[in-house]
Amino acid sequence: MNGEAGAEGAAGFDPAGLLRVGEGFRLADVDPNSAPGFDGGKDEGAQLLASADDALSELQEKLFAQSRFGATDSVLLVLQAMDTAGKGGIVRHVIGSVDPQGVKHRAFKAPTIEERARGFLWRIEQALPPDGIIGVFDRSHYEEVLIHRVRGLSPLAEVEQRYAMINEFEAKVAASGTRIIKVMLHISKEEQEKRLKERLDRPDKYWKYNPGDVDDRAFWDEYQHAYQLVFERTSTEVAPWYVVPADRKWYARIAVQQLLIGTLAAIDPQWPKATFDVESEKRRLEES
Amino acid sequence: MNGEAGAEGAAGFDPAGLLRVGEGFRLADVDPNSAPGFDGGKDEGAQLLASADDALSELQEKLFAQSRFGATDSVLLVLQAMDTAGKGGIVRHVIGSVDPQGVKHRAFKAPTIEERARGFLWRIEQALPPDGIIGVFDRSHYEEVLIHRVRGLSPLAEVEQRYAMINEFEAKVAASGTRIIKVMLHISKEEQEKRLKERLDRPDKYWKYNPGDVDDRAFWDEYQHAYQLVFERTSTEVAPWYVVPADRKWYARIAVQQLLIGTLAAIDPQWPKATFDVESEKRRLEES
Repeated sequence: MNGEAGAEGAAGFDPAGLLRVGEGFRLADVDPNSAPGFDGGKDEGAQLLASADDALSELQEKLFAQSRFGATDSVLLVLQAMDTAGKGGIVRHVIGSVDPQGVKHRAFKAPTIEERARGFLWRIEQALPPDGIIGVFDRSHYEEVLIHRVRGLSPLAEVEQRYAMINEFEAKVAASGTRIIKVMLHISKEEQEKRLKERLDRPDKYWKYNPGDVDDRAFWDEYQHAYQLVFERTSTEVAPWYVVPADRKWYARIAVQQLLIGTLAAIDPQWPKATFDVESEKRRLEES
Repeated sequence: MNGEAGAEGAAGFDPAGLLRVGEGFRLADVDPNSAPGFDGGKDEGAQLLASADDALSELQEKLFAQSRFGATDSVLLVLQAMDTAGKGGIVRHVIGSVDPQGVKHRAFKAPTIEERARGFLWRIEQALPPDGIIGVFDRSHYEEVLIHRVRGLSPLAEVEQRYAMINEFEAKVAASGTRIIKVMLHISKEEQEKRLKERLDRPDKYWKYNPGDVDDRAFWDEYQHAYQLVFERTSTEVAPWYVVPADRKWYARIAVQQLLIGTLAAIDPQWPKATFDVESEKRRLEES
């Protein structure tokens, strides 16, 4: 079950199977305010987030350690969402608990002219995590079939070709040892309004506000449809999509944390064995 | 006072002036087991570390925010040390409290042939933090005047030329808006022995043990001398060195944390003002 996440959810919370996009998935059927698989509320969620930090950290350190001795496994977490859905909060509160040495984070903005000239997957390939590293993409190549479709930034015929190109690319990445977890944080239009309103109410949040976000709200349904197409066409065995209800931030965080833990547990990284004679090194050290 | 750190140490702890390398500095006079400027012990240190997280995080977020609106300030923390001195712990426990989106971490190993062909500062320049980002170098261009001098990896005449090249390079980096903090974590040979021994006693630490570390202990005095030369020749107004006693890990962490806080406070980053009309955006949002 390559790429399968959630094998060992803490405290019995194992959302991978519940959130994974499968046959017949319909985004419209997912309630952004739900908390699949989790019985507790906000406080229990915060407790789980804190208590699972150690498991995530140890798995990450093992992943990193074994890569120093030739293991080629790595992990790539792709985050996609409508604005304000909480990508930044996932990075801060889930990825933030992991040793910065073991993380490669990349936020993708609109490509530069130079980047575009090289094909839309070129800069993605450059940003892939090296062996032993957890890569995090805040937005990704999926913008090329989301905003490009909705806002007509590329001819539709080109957009249509990209799904297959993406699948081919991701299959190659997975074959090289990178487990791919693709997450869409799913918020409601109402929750987005609340969060945008908060940015307008707080001067320390103005910098996060972009008038274009309100423009995009007029295309809400078109975006949901574009996401639906993404799920139908690019949720594969080696690079599955997970749709994470995100109106409750605490739920989205524990869900993504468990997806990461499950993926790392499936890799089952091991502390490298000594490549030296421990006893003779102890003697050498004493004499040094 | 460009590059001055420690202007606003929390709880009155302001180690910058005490640790900064100035005229007549002698590494041999610094006790690796000391805790300059801090009256408390390990517990108080841990408390300070935790309580100062918020100040560091808020300053970092402001630094990042203002860069989205054109500010060009950034920070570069350079970490150098003998093996086991705790560079990794600084990254994990000090930098680890900062939003991963705002950090660019780079560990430098021996350069590849391709890198070397471009000159020793080329890959350093590639790794500099973009505007608004805190860059962290785990080892750096200083290896070129440390191990290269001690182990004769380059002809001495070449090593001798590098100090001036480094100063010129760092002056250019500083002039572009990057505050440079250079930290040497200073441990004793005895403390290193203890830490290496621990790596040999614990199978989950074997991967961090390198027999070459014991070889290097035979060159301890030569390394200390090479550091002394580094301090004499490259501690400048715009890129000062700080020697941080590191036999007590907790002290090194709070000291580096305060150096960062002080440097960020001196930049005094500001929340960007709204570039839109707040009231009309609120109306647009309500109607969307």
